[in-house]
Amino acid sequence: MKRLVLLRHGQSAWNKENRFTGWTDVPLSEAGVEEARKAGRDMLNAGFHFKVAYTSFLKRAIKTCWLALEEMDRMYIPVYTSWRLNEKHYGMLTGLNKAETAEKYGDEQVLLWRRGYAIAPPAIDPENEFSPYLDAKYSAIPKEQIPLTESLKDTIERIIPYWESDIRPALFREGEVLVAAHGNSLRGIVKYLKNMSEEEILELNLVTGIPYVFEFDDEGKLLRDYFLADDEELRKQMAAVASQGKK
Amino acid sequence: MKRLVLLRHGQSAWNKENRFTGWTDVPLSEAGVEEARKAGRDMLNAGFHFKVAYTSFLKRAIKTCWLALEEMDRMYIPVYTSWRLNEKHYGMLTGLNKAETAEKYGDEQVLLWRRGYAIAPPAIDPENEFSPYLDAKYSAIPKEQIPLTESLKDTIERIIPYWESDIRPALFREGEVLVAAHGNSLRGIVKYLKNMSEEEILELNLVTGIPYVFEFDDEGKLLRDYFLADDEELRKQMAAVASQGKK
Repeated sequence: MKRLVLLRHGQSAWNKENRFTGWTDVPLSEAGVEEARKAGRDMLNAGFHFKVAYTSFLKRAIKTCWLALEEMDRMYIPVYTSWRLNEKHYGMLTGLNKAETAEKYGDEQVLLWRRGYAIAPPAIDPENEFSPYLDAKYSAIPKEQIPLTESLKDTIERIIPYWESDIRPALFREGEVLVAAHGNSLRGIVKYLKNMSEEEILELNLVTGIPYVFEFDDEGKLLRDYFLADDEELRKQMAAVASQGKK
Repeated sequence: MKRLVLLRHGQSAWNKENRFTGWTDVPLSEAGVEEARKAGRDMLNAGFHFKVAYTSFLKRAIKTCWLALEEMDRMYIPVYTSWRLNEKHYGMLTGLNKAETAEKYGDEQVLLWRRGYAIAPPAIDPENEFSPYLDAKYSAIPKEQIPLTESLKDTIERIIPYWESDIRPALFREGEVLVAAHGNSLRGIVKYLKNMSEEEILELNLVTGIPYVFEFDDEGKLLRDYFLADDEELRKQMAAVASQGKK
């Protein structure tokens, strides 16, 4: 059996303030650090022994990965970073408070921007302080690949090539793989693995710090998927994520 | 110009107790965490922008690497781990207090074991709790490559192939490379780069947490090497390292 775990990073400084973060490289909050450690302990207790881990170019996901591996005593395994696992790019909404944006544009428009499958917010100005063109992290990546805004569809379309080229082969070679990333980049992988419709993936709200386990047989057939969490607790947290874009 | 930085991990729980650590996977002490963070800040202030980092399979070196990169805001760069960068394996001395060992065997014998270039302590029992044969971390490595004891010569001989195959090419491809490792594994690299005699390398005592910089021209000629530290402070700390094996 092959096992993949998707882990959404713990609370960041901006999650706490309810702002559109996207590619902005904010650190975990103290609560987020604790969530990551707890996820590591939960995965250890559930018998996971990852051989390799993948994470994004953003420190809230990288730190979540590192902290979980530290709790699991597996700091020595290879950890690969890729901008393709970054959060959805929120374009010109980047940095705005979600409730304020809802006040200004209305719940419906915000919900479309956050969750409309193929609807991207207006692009960020390439000279804006939050523009990825000005961030040295992305300087080695061809500019035509770097987004200035993204729909969920765009996000998924830049993740799947990396899943196919790197993560999937590692899963079937090594047997147990951790992916520590973001709400929307992980949705891309979930949609792909479960062959979900656009409507279904829009309904799925991944909770921070809860490991999401996928089990495959040796031929790559998905056998089952489940969260490493108490059901009641999980339902409450998913509802909380879903309500973030409301006034 | 190409720049390599060798960084010996900060103080570990066992450094503090003055015990032979070697391959035992002890964590950094709180002072060691602070040393690693300070090293990161010092390298940042000195204008280093690493493109890739290398570290051992041992958490005191890995954590030092992670903490330094966190301070430098470069957590996203590739970090490669290898058992070849591990500390010298101290064989059956592993776990013993250095002062106690000196009391029992005499300063001279301990100095030979610690610092005799080609003299290895007696091998550790493969069934001993500290045996690397019993550590899952090394399960993918052919047993004939895993040491049960090592002289400094042995340590250097297993590091140089990794320097040649991985680190050196990355240095000349990427321009700036960090290697966070251990007192003796780093001595191996220093001896090789500076073409030092056995006597010279035995005199070199690397201080924890002080970045050691090597500058090369584009043809690979070593231009200069220096420590990122105040001279007086450095002399005191080197003397302290040298005296650890004494009663």
